Amino acid sequence: MTDVSVTLGANKYGKAENRVVRIKRDTARHEITDLNVTSQLRGEKLVDSYLAGDNSLVVATDTQKNTVFAFAKEHGIASPEEFLLTLGEHFTSEFEWIEGGLWQAEQYEWERILVDGQGHDHSFVRKGQGTRLATVQKVDGETHVTGGVKDLVVLKSSGSEFAGFPRDKYTTLVETDDRIMATSVTGRWRFLPEAVEAGIDYNGLYTEVSGVLLSTFASVHSLALQQTLFEMGRAVIEARPEIAEVRFAMPNKHHFVYDLSPFGLENPNEVFIAADRPYGLIEGTVVRDGAQPAPAAWTDVPTFV
Amino acid sequence: MTDVSVTLGANKYGKAENRVVRIKRDTARHEITDLNVTSQLRGEKLVDSYLAGDNSLVVATDTQKNTVFAFAKEHGIASPEEFLLTLGEHFTSEFEWIEGGLWQAEQYEWERILVDGQGHDHSFVRKGQGTRLATVQKVDGETHVTGGVKDLVVLKSSGSEFAGFPRDKYTTLVETDDRIMATSVTGRWRFLPEAVEAGIDYNGLYTEVSGVLLSTFASVHSLALQQTLFEMGRAVIEARPEIAEVRFAMPNKHHFVYDLSPFGLENPNEVFIAADRPYGLIEGTVVRDGAQPAPAAWTDVPTFV
Amino acid sequence: MTDVSVTLGANKYGKAENRVVRIKRDTARHEITDLNVTSQLRGEKLVDSYLAGDNSLVVATDTQKNTVFAFAKEHGIASPEEFLLTLGEHFTSEFEWIEGGLWQAEQYEWERILVDGQGHDHSFVRKGQGTRLATVQKVDGETHVTGGVKDLVVLKSSGSEFAGFPRDKYTTLVETDDRIMATSVTGRWRFLPEAVEAGIDYNGLYTEVSGVLLSTFASVHSLALQQTLFEMGRAVIEARPEIAEVRFAMPNKHHFVYDLSPFGLENPNEVFIAADRPYGLIEGTVVRDGAQPAPAAWTDVPTFV
Amino acid sequence: MTDVSVTLGANKYGKAENRVVRIKRDTARHEITDLNVTSQLRGEKLVDSYLAGDNSLVVATDTQKNTVFAFAKEHGIASPEEFLLTLGEHFTSEFEWIEGGLWQAEQYEWERILVDGQGHDHSFVRKGQGTRLATVQKVDGETHVTGGVKDLVVLKSSGSEFAGFPRDKYTTLVETDDRIMATSVTGRWRFLPEAVEAGIDYNGLYTEVSGVLLSTFASVHSLALQQTLFEMGRAVIEARPEIAEVRFAMPNKHHFVYDLSPFGLENPNEVFIAADRPYGLIEGTVVRDGAQPAPAAWTDVPTFV
Repeated sequence: MTDVSVTLGANKYGKAENRVVRIKRDTARHEITDLNVTSQLRGEKLVDSYLAGDNSLVVATDTQKNTVFAFAKEHGIASPEEFLLTLGEHFTSEFEWIEGGLWQAEQYEWERILVDGQGHDHSFVRKGQGTRLATVQKVDGETHVTGGVKDLVVLKSSGSEFAGFPRDKYTTLVETDDRIMATSVTGRWRFLPEAVEAGIDYNGLYTEVSGVLLSTFASVHSLALQQTLFEMGRAVIEARPEIAEVRFAMPNKHHFVYDLSPFGLENPNEVFIAADRPYGLIEGTVVRDGAQPAPAAWTDVPTFV
Repeated sequence: MTDVSVTLGANKYGKAENRVVRIKRDTARHEITDLNVTSQLRGEKLVDSYLAGDNSLVVATDTQKNTVFAFAKEHGIASPEEFLLTLGEHFTSEFEWIEGGLWQAEQYEWERILVDGQGHDHSFVRKGQGTRLATVQKVDGETHVTGGVKDLVVLKSSGSEFAGFPRDKYTTLVETDDRIMATSVTGRWRFLPEAVEAGIDYNGLYTEVSGVLLSTFASVHSLALQQTLFEMGRAVIEARPEIAEVRFAMPNKHHFVYDLSPFGLENPNEVFIAADRPYGLIEGTVVRDGAQPAPAAWTDVPTFV
Repeated sequence: MTDVSVTLGANKYGKAENRVVRIKRDTARHEITDLNVTSQLRGEKLVDSYLAGDNSLVVATDTQKNTVFAFAKEHGIASPEEFLLTLGEHFTSEFEWIEGGLWQAEQYEWERILVDGQGHDHSFVRKGQGTRLATVQKVDGETHVTGGVKDLVVLKSSGSEFAGFPRDKYTTLVETDDRIMATSVTGRWRFLPEAVEAGIDYNGLYTEVSGVLLSTFASVHSLALQQTLFEMGRAVIEARPEIAEVRFAMPNKHHFVYDLSPFGLENPNEVFIAADRPYGLIEGTVVRDGAQPAPAAWTDVPTFV
Repeated sequence: MTDVSVTLGANKYGKAENRVVRIKRDTARHEITDLNVTSQLRGEKLVDSYLAGDNSLVVATDTQKNTVFAFAKEHGIASPEEFLLTLGEHFTSEFEWIEGGLWQAEQYEWERILVDGQGHDHSFVRKGQGTRLATVQKVDGETHVTGGVKDLVVLKSSGSEFAGFPRDKYTTLVETDDRIMATSVTGRWRFLPEAVEAGIDYNGLYTEVSGVLLSTFASVHSLALQQTLFEMGRAVIEARPEIAEVRFAMPNKHHFVYDLSPFGLENPNEVFIAADRPYGLIEGTVVRDGAQPAPAAWTDVPTFV
């Protein structure tokens, strides 16, 4: 058509959202692990699949899927982070031209159903509070691991102010020293490479970090969601030496005091309307001083949201 | 245009999905109630709004919204059922031409965030396990009340069979004596009118019924999801004399054993792929013998789903 | 446990959301039909599957799925209505104990991609404007058929008023003689049994009715969404003698004039904020005079929404 | 707690999903522009809001919202790209400490409803085919602009192969020389800074690029989705000299040939089941040779998806 010439830039490919459910049933007391796994590969030599439809080096996305399920049997799923590490190691070692990739997982937690006060052996109810996240990124010969959580919905009915902000001609917001503050926390924490190498109790860490996120949200008297975000990150890093940095995306889920004055009613922060859109969106990273930065770790990881 | 003539049939109108959050803050220990309320009205005399755009009897949907929020202050929200009863009583008594209507609520549960092992006074995390449902239907001078739950996701990793079904030329399904059975329970229970009149501890009942649903799902050795459904309904009715009938919609959320044989691996019900669509969809009603039927109670209530 | 006794009430079961895509490729110019089909069966003799887990009469939901896909080959898909009729006829004749059921379909429309101004032979883009609906209900020896549409999103930026409504102590809404009116139309039209028997050009009818819905929405100067709804139903019934009645659910998707007065700006209906929740919800039925009522046709059909 | 010290890393904040609808009504023939706008700001001096809850430099997210709606009146919305440029210029010039930010928009297209074959003056139906995207990124004194589209769902019922891929022990996929290829295109094109400066007919460009995407998808005989992706990017860059690069995310929406052999039926690519998960996910960038790279343009832009 013209003499324009073009080149392939950043790319990756794979199989997304493999819903693998693993039951450990060595004893009558089963255990369940429920993951949504995405595997994507990168490699310079894959360029010909884009440029010429040459698939001779394309590890089929169907093969990636099979591998996810086969590995759930062969290696089990000790934690989402370890499972992704095993997958990443496999693809980059089995196929010499696969230089790296991004492996992601969501984990849905289940708890035992109580029967006569006892947890049942093989019956479970989905917990529903927050979804666990994990990623493994392999790039330039390095391996980066993150853990995380999303959809952790929290609310403070007091202990939250917002005042002292600048006013211009488009500012109408009234200052407040008492409001509802609510958010749905998405947080991802990057592990220090040396901690990954030494081995981490990823499950124990997730439980502890989740608790720290909640208790810090509760304890901090908030002057702004930004401040709460930063304190939550600080507390996580203080709690666990394995963590290099934490990234948060926190929508400010507005709850507006409903105006009841037309009906002769006072409303001292008792009746609110929960709004959907628009919402504030506060994003920030808290970094451990001295930790080596690793921007490559975050490549293509859903950033801040 | 032609000499075709038409009439208005079944109808109702109102304001849907009023997201009202009520904080009780009489003491430092706040309590939160979080509802999604829909109010819709019916009345023969409203016909002219449809036929001629005559709004003289149309209680504006905006007025219905205001009433929901004002009532959250004036009457509080003891339970979703009682809140809807108060709304229904108001609209049908305040406006003589409003003969009935349907009021619906979803309730999202929150639990206190733990700080140093203690539940915080005014910080909460959304529970996420099941959404509580309620409806009040006023029709033909009668008042019907239902409670319910949806999105209660449960799974048995054993104790479930499916066999003995008829085979025709389109049948390929293999019989199984051990499979995963998983569903997302939607259940609605209708209260006996006399129990409504006498007064019910709706919150205590909801807690008990939720527990019975879970424990029955766990305990029943299942020959079919239909059977489990029926036993869950029976158990609920046995547990609470206030309940006339229970309606369930239960998708059979298929978990297929992943075929690992091409890779030389056995898979004795250990690795499953969770499928999205299609899914089985089992619906049924369990009725207390002797309870007066009330089909009108279910008019326009999302039926079975 | 106790001497409470219970009975099975209303029920049905089947396979939901079978996503069947049928390509007609007799010539190089392919045609595509894209459906989401749900099949559910009813029968008195199925009671034992609920009461005792006896599956000897349970036509497996997997068999229903296979039948849907096999029929797409054996019978083709002339229209969703005819495809569902064939399915319903099959299940109720092949299995004597299956007395009836409900078959539902959504259809996603595709249009040919233009290449050099010509529609391509085998490349399509999803239309995205409205989803076609159909149901077949077999009950008490009768067969009821409906067509329909959902997610047809329309908006008038003028030609819509709302005034003259009653005011009580909870009324704050200001009357308006010019507003945006927007809705997402869900409509279902029931066909006269005699028209079904005689045969209907369901595809041609759908196209015509969709056009009538749109043009009537546009043409009517609206005093209330109720009035517009009724006129849309009337126009549909006038246009097609095969239609007995039309049911509509129309959310009033509020667009609020944004208050720009704090910024010294006028806003004569130029800048709006589109709200999500709450929304008005107007539902109504328009019935052809003289058409035989058929409440059973609507059993378990998502009513009004 | 410990002597761990932490620092604020990457961050931004603002108001997300402002649903602004702008009606041009200078004449009886109205025009509608329907956007979903997100505004987020960055600046080194904002650090104290995170570290100390000092809001003295925090341009409130509510102020950002007001500005979006006020600007829709003051400046109109010629195109989403130009609207975002105006917003970005405002915030970085009005507040000296705001060094940059990310502004994003989705645009929903409407078309006039036909009445008697003529487009109506003020009644519209949502088009529903693809959602237009735009971003403006201001960082390090530079301004980057992208356009884009998402949810453009396309399908080829022939003209697509997949073969020649490597096989390992986890490979079971059969080679095919004729399959359905379907995807939902997300594409974002970055404009050359000099073109932005010179001024671009963004709306005309969007229309042309959308057409080129579709016709290229249709015309290319596909050996792999990767190849189709690359050819679509090449065609876009060849068509419009303003474009520096195009990023695509293309899920491979699998359509599996349904196995009808148990029923004695052949299925020569006529009946398919459309699967939901897992799906292939192919992502790639096509870059104009000689265009200056600008990784900062993509910071926090939903990458590849």
